[in-house]
Amino acid sequence: MKPTARFRPAWSESAPGAGTFRSIAKYGDPRAFKHPSDAWVRMMMQEFGMTEADFSRKRDQGDIPVAIGRPSKLSSAHLEALAGIVGDKNVAVDDYSRLKYASGKTAEEILELRRGIVREVADAVVHPRDKNDVRKIVEYCDAERIAVTAYGGGSSVNFGCRPYRGGISLVLGTHMSSLLDINETDQLARVQPGMLGPAYEDALEHAPERFGCRRRYTCGHFPQSFEYSTVGGWVVTLGSGQASTYYGDAYDLVFSQEYVTPVGSFKTIEAPATATGPRINDIMKGSEGSFGILVEARMRVFRYMPENRARFGFMYPSWEAAVDASREIMQGEFGRPAVYRISDPEETDRGLKLYGVPGFAEPIMAKLGFEPMRRCLCLGTVEGDPDYTRLVSRKVKQVAKRYGAVSLGGYATRKWEPTRYTEPYMREDLNDFGILIDTLEAGVTWDNLHRLHQGVRAFVKSRPGTICMTHASHFYPQGTNLYFIFVARMDLDEYVAFQAGIIDQILKHGGTLSHHHGVGRLLAPWMEAHLGPEQMGVLRALKRHFDPNNVMNPGGQLGLDEIPPRR
Amino acid sequence: MKPTARFRPAWSESAPGAGTFRSIAKYGDPRAFKHPSDAWVRMMMQEFGMTEADFSRKRDQGDIPVAIGRPSKLSSAHLEALAGIVGDKNVAVDDYSRLKYASGKTAEEILELRRGIVREVADAVVHPRDKNDVRKIVEYCDAERIAVTAYGGGSSVNFGCRPYRGGISLVLGTHMSSLLDINETDQLARVQPGMLGPAYEDALEHAPERFGCRRRYTCGHFPQSFEYSTVGGWVVTLGSGQASTYYGDAYDLVFSQEYVTPVGSFKTIEAPATATGPRINDIMKGSEGSFGILVEARMRVFRYMPENRARFGFMYPSWEAAVDASREIMQGEFGRPAVYRISDPEETDRGLKLYGVPGFAEPIMAKLGFEPMRRCLCLGTVEGDPDYTRLVSRKVKQVAKRYGAVSLGGYATRKWEPTRYTEPYMREDLNDFGILIDTLEAGVTWDNLHRLHQGVRAFVKSRPGTICMTHASHFYPQGTNLYFIFVARMDLDEYVAFQAGIIDQILKHGGTLSHHHGVGRLLAPWMEAHLGPEQMGVLRALKRHFDPNNVMNPGGQLGLDEIPPRR
Repeated sequence: MKPTARFRPAWSESAPGAGTFRSIAKYGDPRAFKHPSDAWVRMMMQEFGMTEADFSRKRDQGDIPVAIGRPSKLSSAHLEALAGIVGDKNVAVDDYSRLKYASGKTAEEILELRRGIVREVADAVVHPRDKNDVRKIVEYCDAERIAVTAYGGGSSVNFGCRPYRGGISLVLGTHMSSLLDINETDQLARVQPGMLGPAYEDALEHAPERFGCRRRYTCGHFPQSFEYSTVGGWVVTLGSGQASTYYGDAYDLVFSQEYVTPVGSFKTIEAPATATGPRINDIMKGSEGSFGILVEARMRVFRYMPENRARFGFMYPSWEAAVDASREIMQGEFGRPAVYRISDPEETDRGLKLYGVPGFAEPIMAKLGFEPMRRCLCLGTVEGDPDYTRLVSRKVKQVAKRYGAVSLGGYATRKWEPTRYTEPYMREDLNDFGILIDTLEAGVTWDNLHRLHQGVRAFVKSRPGTICMTHASHFYPQGTNLYFIFVARMDLDEYVAFQAGIIDQILKHGGTLSHHHGVGRLLAPWMEAHLGPEQMGVLRALKRHFDPNNVMNPGGQLGLDEIPPRR
Repeated sequence: MKPTARFRPAWSESAPGAGTFRSIAKYGDPRAFKHPSDAWVRMMMQEFGMTEADFSRKRDQGDIPVAIGRPSKLSSAHLEALAGIVGDKNVAVDDYSRLKYASGKTAEEILELRRGIVREVADAVVHPRDKNDVRKIVEYCDAERIAVTAYGGGSSVNFGCRPYRGGISLVLGTHMSSLLDINETDQLARVQPGMLGPAYEDALEHAPERFGCRRRYTCGHFPQSFEYSTVGGWVVTLGSGQASTYYGDAYDLVFSQEYVTPVGSFKTIEAPATATGPRINDIMKGSEGSFGILVEARMRVFRYMPENRARFGFMYPSWEAAVDASREIMQGEFGRPAVYRISDPEETDRGLKLYGVPGFAEPIMAKLGFEPMRRCLCLGTVEGDPDYTRLVSRKVKQVAKRYGAVSLGGYATRKWEPTRYTEPYMREDLNDFGILIDTLEAGVTWDNLHRLHQGVRAFVKSRPGTICMTHASHFYPQGTNLYFIFVARMDLDEYVAFQAGIIDQILKHGGTLSHHHGVGRLLAPWMEAHLGPEQMGVLRALKRHFDPNNVMNPGGQLGLDEIPPRR
């Protein structure tokens, strides 16, 4: 049956009921929705052989109250001791809390939550009020061999906050969520780990009003999960923001850190550089809660000058041209753009449909010979001093022209900007009708980019009816990342095997196991093969040092201890 | 007695005799010399109350043949086993080799060598031919509990290559000193650890002729020790080059590394960024031979475009103005200069004398009110794309003017450039007449810079007749380094105590123990106080992991094991 042009599914627009599985599964603001465009629906019907009937019945929405059916295994003595540290109202053992703070945002978790399936949860949820609480909790739990799994914003896409060994979920966002001070001389912000992105950025942008500063600042870190991820989470999972090409990855933004571990608490030394042996500040980054709890960080901040932001966009005749031009830009020694993204042919064409703007470029494109499934979109911004943004914009344009691109001006970037944090919202609509969407990503050198791209695509596209969109969005002189988005009508069992196959392909073709999503338990089974036994040995030695009783996020995180079966 | 204007000491101009202590003590090229200017001699006579007679008799030049008077403690079976690995001619037990490869370039070592004093030496010197040799040597030495101390270029200023526990000196520069390949797509050079700076840079600059590349490259790393330090040494001691403000410190230049350790050999993963747990590539940097031997590194390289280099120089009315302007430049978000240096008032004035150019600026300075012992010299370069160098030069100048500086054009930088690697040569002349010169340096945040500067100067200047020149030469948005140069007529015993007092002051006033000189044994006694027991515990846990039998550079390196008394 040919789909009618005006068909539109009855997308959900109602906030999840309080206490339901759906309220945990749904991304972000309970009252916010983002629906696929009509063109996208038509495309999915075509690609997946779906009919209007297939879009008439929603399945497994999770609109039932959470009930986990398993009592807390923590003794009342333990619960009293924990309440003695943080106060009664900061310890919870109810089903809803235990499930909520055990859940992240993997495709698998969402689909299971929609069906009311409950996997491992903690025995209690604890909300520390400050770093002294954290110190006492870690001391107590270490002495009593109670597992501690940290929970920041819950945006993990790798089961990083699933409490595989029970114990407690330690929720850092409830009370430890403030910007403590800004040092303008050093351009450093001292921030608590549980602060969400928007609150952090807002405080920095309002530094004069809130902290009596002379200037406004920006954090420079804007991941897609910005609204529901925490500063501490960015650091301990090695995140990257959309403007990382200029501002750096979370790794680069961390000036110093304070940790609580089972073997003691410490602040790393505070200096822009030091030659005093291996840098503890860097050793702690990426530890994903396995060594201890990040309780405070000093983050590098930047002058906030949105008035200088320049936007650019280009259409390249081919992926090869887009990649070569991007490399030339990153190696050209003339400064760097802030946001910089290139989409492969499939993402470019589907993206034009997704954003509902096929009209804006098609006539120009056609006339100039930029063919569908060959052409590639590039968009981005330049930030900083006004003369600098002008220079870099001009240079980017010069390079683009040399590689055969046509300029789209700021249009594509302006269309993209409002969507930069909202795409995860679309997942609920797709899941409603049995369509699965997920992502995997890898770091890669320029020299290996095409091999990785082609290798992963060959595997994914060998499955009929599978959309695979790829972009690169974090650039360095030596390479970039590839970010793969998969959309298919597929059940969860099939997807889990399919996902494992894609990860195999990423490693086989020389990508890193993760560029900025972290490892968690999802990728843990591949860590030994990826790093090799010698380097895993280094991570395990650090784990043994910091956490001799294996109470910090135990159960396979980073592949440091035995990895339990996930399902 | 008033010194006569035309007095000039009879500086040494003869190359050291073969096999003498002096041939080990002398810096750099045996036939190269750099003498203090006449004005400097007059200044020293004044400051130190010296007469022409004091400059007539040279002392302790070390012109006697090396004899160490202690036989190798390695059994002939061990020596045969080592020769079985590397070949007979690559094992040496003669006195000269054992002393040469046990010596670095601390003030203390030089003065002791001049007097024929021998401290700890290895029992044998081994020159591995390749990384397989290194693997076999480390395996053998680990099994037999023979200490292994790596020797690169011997430019250590902290006893980093002194074999405190005997065993072998492992010399990496004899055979393992090649640039293996250049990957132009990724702008990466694969290099052996024992390659000296000039050979490395020369190979990169001649990449088209030597490797068939399309472009010329530069390593971006030019420490003062450039001519006599190795790429491997830069990495394992966390060095910084004079152009680090743009190109980054050695830490930033290392893309991936291959190590041989007692618990195995490994290459770190190759990607521009990764989120796969704490980064082993970074954990190894700064390990100073204590975890294992760096046998190969892939280093980031840059397009070599010397034709675009812009030079600038300014005189600031005060140190405060120079610091404030520098901070504004580093935080201005318009790109960064490559070389960037500011000299404090004492260095500025003595520097004008040292370079023999008081005439060039004095009339302008005086007219404009730039007073001696207030004014501060700033010099530097901008490298990269020509439009970028123009932009950054213009911006630097704008900021400088806002802070009251007068431009000197490229003059000061052009005067400085030929001296950039030659200053260490002057030490021999000073030592000849009982004058001691040495340096210490620290990383520091902007906010703490003046406190550190004033604290160290107050201590140093409390000793009459002590010159203390300070500059900052490696800049970051969050701070810089302070590099202190001391010149005094002082004997070694007094200096050792004085040096310890300065290090105390650096820590007391919030500097790091080292910005780019590394730790070695010199600074090891302060490590625990600087990092705290928790962070030292991390380094010791790594040491135990990599080197359970404590054979890799044992004897106090980095403060990881017991620190033996030095004298």
